Amino acid sequence: MEEVKLLGAFPSPYAYRVEWALLHKGIKYEYIEEDLKNKSPLLLKCNPVHKKVPVLLHGEKSITESLVILEYIDETWKEKPLLPQDPFERAKARFWAKFAEEKCASVMPFVFCSEGEEHKKAAEEAREVLKILEEELKGKEFFGGVSVGFVDLVLGWIPHWLPVMEGVSGVKLLDADTFPAIYAWAERFLKVPFIKEKLPPSDGMLVYFTNIWRGLLNK
Amino acid sequence: MEEVKLLGAFPSPYAYRVEWALLHKGIKYEYIEEDLKNKSPLLLKCNPVHKKVPVLLHGEKSITESLVILEYIDETWKEKPLLPQDPFERAKARFWAKFAEEKCASVMPFVFCSEGEEHKKAAEEAREVLKILEEELKGKEFFGGVSVGFVDLVLGWIPHWLPVMEGVSGVKLLDADTFPAIYAWAERFLKVPFIKEKLPPSDGMLVYFTNIWRGLLNK
Repeated sequence: MEEVKLLGAFPSPYAYRVEWALLHKGIKYEYIEEDLKNKSPLLLKCNPVHKKVPVLLHGEKSITESLVILEYIDETWKEKPLLPQDPFERAKARFWAKFAEEKCASVMPFVFCSEGEEHKKAAEEAREVLKILEEELKGKEFFGGVSVGFVDLVLGWIPHWLPVMEGVSGVKLLDADTFPAIYAWAERFLKVPFIKEKLPPSDGMLVYFTNIWRGLLNK
Repeated sequence: MEEVKLLGAFPSPYAYRVEWALLHKGIKYEYIEEDLKNKSPLLLKCNPVHKKVPVLLHGEKSITESLVILEYIDETWKEKPLLPQDPFERAKARFWAKFAEEKCASVMPFVFCSEGEEHKKAAEEAREVLKILEEELKGKEFFGGVSVGFVDLVLGWIPHWLPVMEGVSGVKLLDADTFPAIYAWAERFLKVPFIKEKLPPSDGMLVYFTNIWRGLLNK
């Protein structure tokens, strides 16, 4: 049995994706908190290209990039798969994971740290993205179907991180009337036992995002 | 046997990745050229989110995003695999494919259509990226080891597209002295039979990139 360790940094949702996958599969692991202002020799050695968390250590092997790590976990510990078995269903999940990564994770947070015309444009773009996700989710309990899968983990920052960003900035993006399917999914997601068990405390998140937001907008 | 069709648009290297994978695996397919200025109802139906090529049609199924398509092809037709079998080796290939996608394909072409300080910064960044690839490739014939694999296909625009862009703009990025491993790899890549068989003609590429370059820089 090779040891499993995870390098993360509070409150990185990229690291939480990996923790959720490990918990879901029942894999014992040790979590190591990184100080991103003073990166450890271990992090620099294991991720020399990007120098970022998360890094999964499995014995002597180190794996980086959260989506790559999720695929590695799914291929190494095959019980309770995150991706479906059928190649076409797998392709669809990978498509939505890529969409979530490129469109949501990069576009949406920008809404909360921009002003004026830039903010207006970002908010419009973010609502377009949510509209596409709303369509995709309609009629399903989770993006993965009847249970949490690959895409749900990738989008897992929306239920818990997004409300904090909305609270700090005073900008509401995800309202129940416009996006009922995503709203209901977010509530459902937070009730899943292995998700509920591992979420960053809201008070710590509030301090973290308030500091970022003030720094970026000079408030 | 379900029919295989590919929607592409000259000279998209994203579509060529898919054609190379199909040729490598010996899969019969029909290529359909899309006019991106007047997108077909088929393209809009099959890729409603991004409305882009390539799209792979396999019977009634449509798959989009070139990296997702490559994985689909590898999982559907298992002979002559593009990705290694071992989960850790697969993770490494996916890491480099992601790097190639995010760092090379987005950063490098910008070198050829920028000027002044912007150009200087882009060229520096592109050389940093090439340096990282040079290190990764050292001692290997291909990124995939002794034969062309997943990462080679993703980087396949470098051997044939990059020289045209360099020629049109008069900017040299990939010189044999600074990047001997990549330079030798590029020559080797172009000699692989299924690659050599399917490359966009250089004269058409020259016209295409000259028009783009003139348009972008108002030359």
